[in-house]
Amino acid sequence: MKINFYRTHIVGVLFLLLFAVQLSFSQVKKTLNILPTSNSENIEDKIETILQQLTLEEKVNLCHAQSKFSVKGVERLGIPEIWMADGPHGVRAEISWDEWSYAGWTNDSITAFPALTCLAATFNPSLAGDYGFSLGEEARYRKKDVLLGPGINIYRTPLNGRNFEYMGEDPFLASKMVVPYVKGVQKNGVAACVKHFALNNQEHLRDKINVEVSDRALHEIYLPAFKAAVQEANVWAIMGAYNKFRGQYTTHHKLLTTKILKQNWQYDGVVISDWSSTHSTEEAALYGLDIEMGTGTDGLGTTTKNHYNNYYLASPFLKKLKSGEIPEAVLNDKVRRILRLMFRTNLNRNRPLGSLNTKEHHDVARKVATEGIVLLKNDDNFFPIKDDKELTIAVIGENSVRSMTAGGGSSELKPKFEISPLEGLKTRYKNATILHTMGYESGRSEYDTVHPPTLDADSLKTEAIKLAEKADIVLFVGGLNKSHLQDSEGDDRKQFGLPFGQEELISEITNVNKNVGFLLLSGNAVEMPWLKKVKGVIQTWYLGSMAGHAIADVVSGDVNPSGKLPFSFPKKLEDNGAHSFGELSYPGIGENQQYKEDILVGYRWHDTKKIKPLFAFGYGLSYTDFSLSNISTNKKAYLRNETIVINCDVSNTGNVKGSEVVQVYIGKPKSKIERPLKELKGFSKVELDSGKTKTVRIEVDIDKLKYYDSSISDWNFESGEYLIYVGNASDNIAKKIKITIK
Amino acid sequence: MKINFYRTHIVGVLFLLLFAVQLSFSQVKKTLNILPTSNSENIEDKIETILQQLTLEEKVNLCHAQSKFSVKGVERLGIPEIWMADGPHGVRAEISWDEWSYAGWTNDSITAFPALTCLAATFNPSLAGDYGFSLGEEARYRKKDVLLGPGINIYRTPLNGRNFEYMGEDPFLASKMVVPYVKGVQKNGVAACVKHFALNNQEHLRDKINVEVSDRALHEIYLPAFKAAVQEANVWAIMGAYNKFRGQYTTHHKLLTTKILKQNWQYDGVVISDWSSTHSTEEAALYGLDIEMGTGTDGLGTTTKNHYNNYYLASPFLKKLKSGEIPEAVLNDKVRRILRLMFRTNLNRNRPLGSLNTKEHHDVARKVATEGIVLLKNDDNFFPIKDDKELTIAVIGENSVRSMTAGGGSSELKPKFEISPLEGLKTRYKNATILHTMGYESGRSEYDTVHPPTLDADSLKTEAIKLAEKADIVLFVGGLNKSHLQDSEGDDRKQFGLPFGQEELISEITNVNKNVGFLLLSGNAVEMPWLKKVKGVIQTWYLGSMAGHAIADVVSGDVNPSGKLPFSFPKKLEDNGAHSFGELSYPGIGENQQYKEDILVGYRWHDTKKIKPLFAFGYGLSYTDFSLSNISTNKKAYLRNETIVINCDVSNTGNVKGSEVVQVYIGKPKSKIERPLKELKGFSKVELDSGKTKTVRIEVDIDKLKYYDSSISDWNFESGEYLIYVGNASDNIAKKIKITIK
Repeated sequence: MKINFYRTHIVGVLFLLLFAVQLSFSQVKKTLNILPTSNSENIEDKIETILQQLTLEEKVNLCHAQSKFSVKGVERLGIPEIWMADGPHGVRAEISWDEWSYAGWTNDSITAFPALTCLAATFNPSLAGDYGFSLGEEARYRKKDVLLGPGINIYRTPLNGRNFEYMGEDPFLASKMVVPYVKGVQKNGVAACVKHFALNNQEHLRDKINVEVSDRALHEIYLPAFKAAVQEANVWAIMGAYNKFRGQYTTHHKLLTTKILKQNWQYDGVVISDWSSTHSTEEAALYGLDIEMGTGTDGLGTTTKNHYNNYYLASPFLKKLKSGEIPEAVLNDKVRRILRLMFRTNLNRNRPLGSLNTKEHHDVARKVATEGIVLLKNDDNFFPIKDDKELTIAVIGENSVRSMTAGGGSSELKPKFEISPLEGLKTRYKNATILHTMGYESGRSEYDTVHPPTLDADSLKTEAIKLAEKADIVLFVGGLNKSHLQDSEGDDRKQFGLPFGQEELISEITNVNKNVGFLLLSGNAVEMPWLKKVKGVIQTWYLGSMAGHAIADVVSGDVNPSGKLPFSFPKKLEDNGAHSFGELSYPGIGENQQYKEDILVGYRWHDTKKIKPLFAFGYGLSYTDFSLSNISTNKKAYLRNETIVINCDVSNTGNVKGSEVVQVYIGKPKSKIERPLKELKGFSKVELDSGKTKTVRIEVDIDKLKYYDSSISDWNFESGEYLIYVGNASDNIAKKIKITIK
Repeated sequence: MKINFYRTHIVGVLFLLLFAVQLSFSQVKKTLNILPTSNSENIEDKIETILQQLTLEEKVNLCHAQSKFSVKGVERLGIPEIWMADGPHGVRAEISWDEWSYAGWTNDSITAFPALTCLAATFNPSLAGDYGFSLGEEARYRKKDVLLGPGINIYRTPLNGRNFEYMGEDPFLASKMVVPYVKGVQKNGVAACVKHFALNNQEHLRDKINVEVSDRALHEIYLPAFKAAVQEANVWAIMGAYNKFRGQYTTHHKLLTTKILKQNWQYDGVVISDWSSTHSTEEAALYGLDIEMGTGTDGLGTTTKNHYNNYYLASPFLKKLKSGEIPEAVLNDKVRRILRLMFRTNLNRNRPLGSLNTKEHHDVARKVATEGIVLLKNDDNFFPIKDDKELTIAVIGENSVRSMTAGGGSSELKPKFEISPLEGLKTRYKNATILHTMGYESGRSEYDTVHPPTLDADSLKTEAIKLAEKADIVLFVGGLNKSHLQDSEGDDRKQFGLPFGQEELISEITNVNKNVGFLLLSGNAVEMPWLKKVKGVIQTWYLGSMAGHAIADVVSGDVNPSGKLPFSFPKKLEDNGAHSFGELSYPGIGENQQYKEDILVGYRWHDTKKIKPLFAFGYGLSYTDFSLSNISTNKKAYLRNETIVINCDVSNTGNVKGSEVVQVYIGKPKSKIERPLKELKGFSKVELDSGKTKTVRIEVDIDKLKYYDSSISDWNFESGEYLIYVGNASDNIAKKIKITIK
C-alpha cells in the first residue's frame, strides 16, 4: 500500500505528454498500456497512472453496478467490466441483465459442491483448498471475476436460515477453513468475496435488525474468520451485510468497514455491498463501501430503465463530489481498490483459463461430501450396510429424491447433474432390494409457500408404513430442505424440530421396524425427540452434485465417515446460548437485538454453562475405533513469544481404515475475566490403516491465547496457568495438561 | 500446416501417461496446459495434443452453435467458448441466447463506422487498416472472438440490397482494402470473418438461388478479394453464403470451400456457415464447413429447447461418424482449424484488451466518412457552402434526421450516438439560418412494411416547397434507407430510381429554387432523372456515428472531398451488365440464374461495351483541381517476371488543399481472348497543398496481368502489347502508354 507519490507524479506527467503527442498522429493510437505484471509495486504505479486518466464520472461509474451482476469498466481505455456471480457452493446460473429471472443460457450448468457446513465438518483445510481451487476454476471458465463467497458468518442459532452456507460456530475452525478456500479460488485470478461483513447471524429481519454485541464478542467470535481471510489469505473482496450494528448499516460502517477492516487490518481489497444493502450516499462514500450492487432491484426500489444512475454511489455521489461535500480523495481510494481488484483478476494476463464440470471437480465434491458427512449415532453397528441379496431396504422420505441445489436463495445452483440419495443408493446397492416411497411431502419450491402439499399426507404415511413393514432395514431420508423458512436465505426457521410431520412419521415407522437409520439432510441442528427410536443417524448436510454417491459411499462403508460437527446440536432450543435470554437476544424485539450470550457461542456456552448438548461440537463417529495416547506438551512453562507443541499418538484400534481429528482446546482456569471453559486452538486430521499408530503434532502460538480487552480496545494477554484439552470431540477429552505461561 | 506426426504421437502418449499419473494424486490436478505461445509450430503441436484428449462428442460439439452467436468449448479441459458478433461496420448489440431479439444489455453501445462502400470509396488502404483495428478493438472489448465481417461480395447490380456492406465492383480495389481491414481487426486477437463465400451477389431469393458463372468470372471477378484475405491478410475465418453455385449450396461446396479455398489456397482457418445456410450433414462434413451456425433459428426450423443438438453438424454428424459413414479424419480436420482459431483468439494470452467508443475510434469513423464521401456534381462551385449570416439553408428530406444504423439486417447497430445530417449541419453552421422539414416520409422501420406513412404526403410536400421558396439554398437530404427493399439484407431493391416520391419532390423544389444540392444517402447507385436540375450532388453513403459531422465537414469545405466511386452509376438500369441479358441473368428465373455478363462487371462492361455511365468507377470531384503530368513507365518492354513501375506527377492547380487518387488501369488490345478494355491494377492517393506537385510511383507485378484460363483450370499469361491507362477516374484517363511483355 505504500506508494511513492513523487515517482507516481512523474509517471503521470510523462503519460499525459505521451498522450498529447499521440493524439497528434494520424495513425490510430493503441489504447492505454495496462498490461498487468507480476510485480505488485509496478501495479500500484499503474493504478496511479490510470487514476490520473479517469474523469470524475468514469471513476464514479466504477463504484456501482451497471446490471444485476456487473460493473462498468472504462471502455475508452480498455479497462474491462467486472463480472460477479453467486455463490459459495458453485457458480450460479446466468441472471438476466436487469431482472432476477435466469437468463436461460445453456452453458451455465456447473458442479454443485457441498454446502460450507459440510466443508467445515471435514476439519480438513487442505480439502478446503481443493474446494476453493475447483470452484475458482469453474468461476473462471464462466468468465466471472468475483465469486460471491465463501460465507463465514458464525453459527449463533440453529434457526438461522442461512447457516448451511457458513462454516459453523467456531471462529478458529472457520478461520482455518476459509484461508485455503480463498487462496484456492484466487489462484484462478478470480476474487473470492467473503461475506457477510459482519454480524449477519440471522435472516429474520436481516434488512433492518440492529445488532448490539460487545467489542469482545465481536473480535473474539464474529470477526476472526474475516480477519484470517484478509491477513492470511489476502482476500480481494469482502461483501457487506444487510443488518445494522450499533445503529449503523454494516455495509458502510464507521467502525467495521472503515476502522477495523481498512485501517486496523490494512485490507487493500474492495468492499462490495450485498444486493440492496446500501442505504446512504454519504455513509457509503465515507465508511468504506467501494462497489454498490443490487440497490432497488429486488422489488424494493425503482425499476426505471436508468435506475443504476440513481444508485447511492452513482449520480448522488457524483453530485456531492462535484460540490466538494465529499472530497475526491474518498473516491480515489475506492477506485484504487477497484483497479487493484482488476489487476488481480481481469487485468491479470497470466490467470489460467478455468474449467467446468471436470472429473477432478466431481472428485473434490465427492471427497468433501464423504469427509464431511458426520456419523452421529450407530447402535449395533447399524452402519455400514452390506449389499446383500437377502436384504430389503426401504428408502423413505422426500429428501431421498428432492433437489437440494434448487432453492435456498442466492446459493441456488443449476448443476449439470445432482445425484439424489435414492439414485446414489440404487447405484451402489446392486444386490439388495431397494424400495422407495415419499412418506411425506413438503410442498413445492422455495418461494412456493402458498400451495399446500399436493399429495394426501395420510396415504403417503400409510404407504410408508407398509414399506417399512416389508423391509429389513429402513433408511429414512429426511431433514430440512431449501424452501423458505427452512434452510434458505431471507428468513429463519420457525421450529427447531423436523417439519412436514416427519417426527410423527418416524415414530410410526419405528413402531413397525426396529432397524431404522436416519439420513439427516440439513444445514442446521434439529431437535431429535425420535433419536432413541432409531439405530443410526448420519448428518449428511447438502452435498451438491455428488450427494447420492457420497451418501452411498458412507452408508455402504466404501468410505469410513470422519466428519466432525462444526456446531453443537443442543437437546432443545433453549439450551443454545442465543436462545437463553429471551426475545431481545433472538429474534430481537422490533428491530433491536442484543447478543446477550456474548462470547459464549456454541460449545463455549454448553461447556461453560455445563449444559450437555445432544451432540457436541467436534463430535463424529467412525466405523473404526481410535485411541489417543502419549499426549504431551513440549514444555510445562512457556514465555509469551513461544509456541506450544502438543504431541499425541493416534491409534486405529478397530478393523477398518479411517480418519480421526485430534482437537486441541485451551482454557484459562481462574481467569480474571470471564472465559469460555475452553476454545479450539488447533486440530489435525490423520488417516490410519487398521492397527496403525501415528504421532500427531499440533502447534499453538501463545499469541493466539490473547483475549480482546475492551478497556484498551486491543488484544491482551493474561499470564498464568492454562489448561490444554486434547480429544476427538469437544466433549470427549482424552487428556488435560496444565501449563504455565509467564 | 506441416505436422510432425511422430513427435505429435510421442507428445500425446506422454500426455496420457501424465494424465493417468495425475489422477492418482489426491491433490486437484491443474487443467490441461493450453497456454498459448507465439511460436506457431508449437501451437500446431498443442493442437495435436488437445485433439487426442477430446472425445468424439466433444469434437462434434465444437462444430456447431450452442446459442445464437456462440459455440461450446470443452469445459472440462478449460477450452473456452467461441463468441461471435455481427458485423462489418460495428459490433452489433447483444442478441438473446436463443432468440433473435436483443438481449437488452446496456453495455453494448458502440461506435458505428461508415458502411464498407464508403471505406472502399476512400481508396485509402491505410485507413482501412485503422478502420479494422478500431473495429477490432471494439469487438475485443465486447469479448467477441470472431467479428462477422467484412463483406466483400462484388457489386454486380445496383439493386442488391446488401451492396452497402461490400467494397464495390472491382476485385482489385476490394482486395487492396480488405487486406489491411482484416489485419487491423486481427491485431486484436479477434478473427475477422470475410463473407459471404461466394457468389452471394443479390439478396433476392438468396436462400435458394442457384448461380451459374464461368470459371473465369469466378476467379477473375468474384474470388480475388477472398483470395487476398486468405493469402495476404491470413484471415482466420470465412463465412459461407446462402446461395447455390452449380447446383450445390456454397456453404459446403466441393469446388469452392474444399478445392479452391482449402486445397488450392491452403487456407488454414475455419469456414463458418451463414445463419441457416447449412443444408446437409454429409455435404457440411465433407465439403469444408467447420462451424454450423443459426440453423433453424430464424423461424425456418424447429424451436425446441435442444434444437442445437439437431444441427446438421451435431447429432446427425455424430451418428455418421460413429457408423463410420464419415471418417473421423474429416472431423479432426475441422477441430484442428477450430482449435487454431482459438489459439489465435481466445487462447492468445497476449491479445490486447480492446476498447470502446474511444476518441480515436470516432476520429477514424469521421476520417473514413469524410475521405469516402464522393462529390459527384458541383456546378458553379455550389459546394462548399460558406457559413454566412445572410444565408438561409433549407434542409429538406427524411434522411436528414433518419437513423441509418437502425435496420439493414445483421449490420444493424446500436451506436452510442449517431449524428444526423441535420444535427451535423446545425452544429457546423452557427451563422446561417437552417430551416428544416421532412419533405417526404418513407414509413417506419426495416421490418415495418405494413404500416403506411403516417404523415400526409401532400402537406409534407407543400411545407417543403414553402421552405425552399424562403431559402437561399436547398440541401436535399434523400436517397435510400435501411428498410426492407431498400439498402437492406434479405431482399433487393425493386426500383432503380429514388423511392417515396423524392423524384417528384426534388423536381418541384427545383422549380422554386435553383440552388439545390443533393446529399445522397445510399449504398447503391440510383437513377438520377433530376440530375440536371440540381447544382450539386454529394454521395454520402451510410456514415455511422459521425455521419452528420462528416457531411458538414465536406459541405462546409472543412474537408475537401476526395472519395472515388467504388462502383459505376449507370444512367439506366439496362446499362448495367447484369441487367443486359434478361431475367435469367437478373434476378434469375425460378431458382436459376446465369451471370451472362461474365467477366464484364461494372466499369469493365461500360468500358468494353462503350456504354457511358452516369458516373464512372473511380470518379469523384474535389474543391480543387489536379493535373497529372510526366506520366511514364520505367521501361517499354518487360520480361514476365518483372514489375512495371509507373511514375506520375500530380499537381494541385486549384486554391485549396486536397487529395487525388491516381489510378492505373491495364488492358490488352488485340487479345486472343475476350478482355475488358482495361482493369484496375494500381492506385495511390496523394494529399497536396494548393500549388504543390508530388510524384506518385505505382508498381504492378506483371504476374497480376494473368487471366484465368478455363482450358487449363489455371491462371495463364498472354505475351505481347499491353496498354497502361493512367488517370483519376476510369473515364478520365490522362495518358495511355503502350508496353510490350515477352
